[in-house]
Amino acid sequence: MTPDKITAAYYRGDKTFIVETTEVPQPKPGEVLLKIAYCGICGTDMHVYHGNMDARVGLNRIVGHEMSATVAEVGEGVSEFDMGQKVVVRPLAACGNCPACAEGYSHICHNLQFLGLDTDGAMQEYWSIPAETLHVLPEDIRLDHAALIEPVAVACHDVRLSQLTPGENAVVIGGGPIGVLVAMVAREAGGNVTISEVNENRLRIADQLGFDTVNPLKSDLVAAINEKTGGKGAEVVFEVSGSQPGVDAMTTVAATRGRIVMVAIHAAPPKVDMFQFFWRELKLIGARVYEPEDYEKAIELIRNGEVGAETIITDVSPLTDIQSAFEALDSSPVAMKSLIKVGGGQ
Amino acid sequence: MTPDKITAAYYRGDKTFIVETTEVPQPKPGEVLLKIAYCGICGTDMHVYHGNMDARVGLNRIVGHEMSATVAEVGEGVSEFDMGQKVVVRPLAACGNCPACAEGYSHICHNLQFLGLDTDGAMQEYWSIPAETLHVLPEDIRLDHAALIEPVAVACHDVRLSQLTPGENAVVIGGGPIGVLVAMVAREAGGNVTISEVNENRLRIADQLGFDTVNPLKSDLVAAINEKTGGKGAEVVFEVSGSQPGVDAMTTVAATRGRIVMVAIHAAPPKVDMFQFFWRELKLIGARVYEPEDYEKAIELIRNGEVGAETIITDVSPLTDIQSAFEALDSSPVAMKSLIKVGGGQ
Repeated sequence: MTPDKITAAYYRGDKTFIVETTEVPQPKPGEVLLKIAYCGICGTDMHVYHGNMDARVGLNRIVGHEMSATVAEVGEGVSEFDMGQKVVVRPLAACGNCPACAEGYSHICHNLQFLGLDTDGAMQEYWSIPAETLHVLPEDIRLDHAALIEPVAVACHDVRLSQLTPGENAVVIGGGPIGVLVAMVAREAGGNVTISEVNENRLRIADQLGFDTVNPLKSDLVAAINEKTGGKGAEVVFEVSGSQPGVDAMTTVAATRGRIVMVAIHAAPPKVDMFQFFWRELKLIGARVYEPEDYEKAIELIRNGEVGAETIITDVSPLTDIQSAFEALDSSPVAMKSLIKVGGGQ
Repeated sequence: MTPDKITAAYYRGDKTFIVETTEVPQPKPGEVLLKIAYCGICGTDMHVYHGNMDARVGLNRIVGHEMSATVAEVGEGVSEFDMGQKVVVRPLAACGNCPACAEGYSHICHNLQFLGLDTDGAMQEYWSIPAETLHVLPEDIRLDHAALIEPVAVACHDVRLSQLTPGENAVVIGGGPIGVLVAMVAREAGGNVTISEVNENRLRIADQLGFDTVNPLKSDLVAAINEKTGGKGAEVVFEVSGSQPGVDAMTTVAATRGRIVMVAIHAAPPKVDMFQFFWRELKLIGARVYEPEDYEKAIELIRNGEVGAETIITDVSPLTDIQSAFEALDSSPVAMKSLIKVGGGQ
C-alpha cells in the first residue's frame, strides 16, 4: 500500500540537503508512481551540491536520477505495467517539436528537460514520472546494481557511437566513475582497453578490474600505447577527463583514422590539435546521454554482471543520511559510486 | 620526339625561381615520362616561395603538382599507356609498410612522399613519375582545365568524407581556391551551399558562381544560416579558413549531429568549443589529400564542366615567367588559380 506521507530530500542551497516528510505524489494521466529502491549520486548531483547549478535547479529541489524502483501505482491511461514490477527511468523529456526531435535525436532535444534536475527526482520514497520514460527490468536483477543502469547507459551510448569493433584498441582518458564504466562497456564490446588516469586510488581500482593502466604523470602514455599497438595507436579514444592534458593526449594516442569520442563536459574551450585531425584524418564524435537502445544494453550488462557493480558501488547510505553521504563522497579519495537506499528493495 | 634538353624552373630560396635548361629525365623501370602541359600554383607552392618549407624542399627544387600532361615515353615494364595519351598525376608515394598503409589508408601513409615537394615536380617540360600515380583522362578534356583536377580531387575527398546527401545544407568557411572548389563539389553532390568569407573580392567571385554568401564581419553568420535552415543549422560544415574565427564559427552553424570537415591546416592548435560537440553530438572529420576514387570523380567533374574552370583560372603564364607569376599571385587581391603553361597543349 502506498502511504500518505513520504520522506524526501531537498537541496536547499549552500551544500545543504534537508530531509522532510511530504505528501505522496499522485500519478497524473500517463504517469506511473514508483517506489524508489536506490538512487546513486551522480557527478551532476555533486555540481548541484556545490551550488554550481542553483540557477537551473533552484533552492527546493529533490535531485536524483540514477535510480531503481518498483511500480506502485499507474495513472489514467497506463496499463502496460504490473504492480511491483522492477523498473528504471530514462530521465529525459523531449519537446517533440525542435529540429533535433524532428531528425530522431530527441535524446538531445533542443529543449530537453532532465528529470531530477529540471523537475524533482528520485531522492524521495515515491516518484511519479511519465510512463514512456520507463524501462522494465528482468525479475532477477538486483535493485542496488540496477541503480547503475543510468550511468552504464551513458557508457553504452559512448561506446556505440565510437563504432568499436572486437579486437580494436581503446584508450580511456580519465578513470573516474564514467571512465571506468566506459572502459568496462568497451571491453565487453571486444575492445583492448587502456585507462589513463592521474589519481593513484582510481588507478588501483582500474588495475583491480583488470585493465591496462598508465599514469601519464609518471610514464609516457604515447610510448605505452605505441608499444601495445605496434606503433599504430588506438583506433578508439574516449576523452572523459575534461582537462586540457586529456585533450592534448587524445590526438597523440589515436591511430590514423582513429575515432575520438568526446564524453567529458569542457566548460571552457580547450586548445585542440586540429593539425593532427587533418594529418591523420582523425574523427571526433560528441556523445551525450543515451537513447533507448543504450538503456536496453545497460540493463543486459548489469543483469549479466558484466560491469563489476560490486567494485563500482563503494558505499550505500539511507536517505536520512544524504547530507553526510554527499559530504563523504565530496572528500573521499577512493569512493567511486555512492548509492542512497531510498526505500525498500532488492 | 622527346628533346635532349628541356626547360625547368628551380626554387633557389628567398622567393626566387630560376629557369634553366637541363637534361631530359629518363624514365626508370616502372616509370612514365610525361610532357607537361599546364601546372597550377598551389598554396603549398606559395609556402615554398615564402621560404617556409626550405628545410623540407631544399634550395634546388622543381616544384609543381597541380598538372596536366601527355605520355611521352614509358620505362621498362610499363605497357598500359599510349603515346600522347592525356594524363594527370596523383602525386603521392606511400611506403607500403606503415600502419596507415596496412589499413588501406596509403594516401596518408606515415612516411608519405609528396611528388613535387619531396621530389622534383611538374614545373619542367618533361617529368618522369611512377606509372601507378597516373590517371588517364578522356580525350576531349582541355589540358588547362585538367590542371585543376588535383585541387578538385582535394575537394572531392572533403565532400565524400562529409557524407553529404542531396538537399542537405552546407557551410563553407573560407572562400579561397580550395573553399570555392569544395563549395562547387558540394553543390554538385546536391548540397545547398553557403560560403562564409571576409575578403570582398573572393565574395564577389563566390556570388558570380551562384552561391549564397555571408561576410561574417558585416552580418550575423549564425542568424543567416538559421534563417536559411529554419533554425536547424547546417548538416555539413567545411572549415577551410585555418583561422580561429573560422573554428569558432564551425560549431555555431552546425546542426545537431552535424558533420564538420577539417580541411584547413592549423599550424597552431586553436581553441575549440568541445562543449558544443558534446551538447549537439557534433562530428569532426579530418580530411587530407585524396584517394584514387576522388581523382576519378574530379576528372568527371572537370570534363563535364561542373566546376567553373573559366572562373577559377584567373591567369596563365609561360614557364619562363614563373617568377613574375608567383609575385603577381602573392600580391593579387583577385587571383584565384594561376596556371603555368609549361609546354604544349591547348
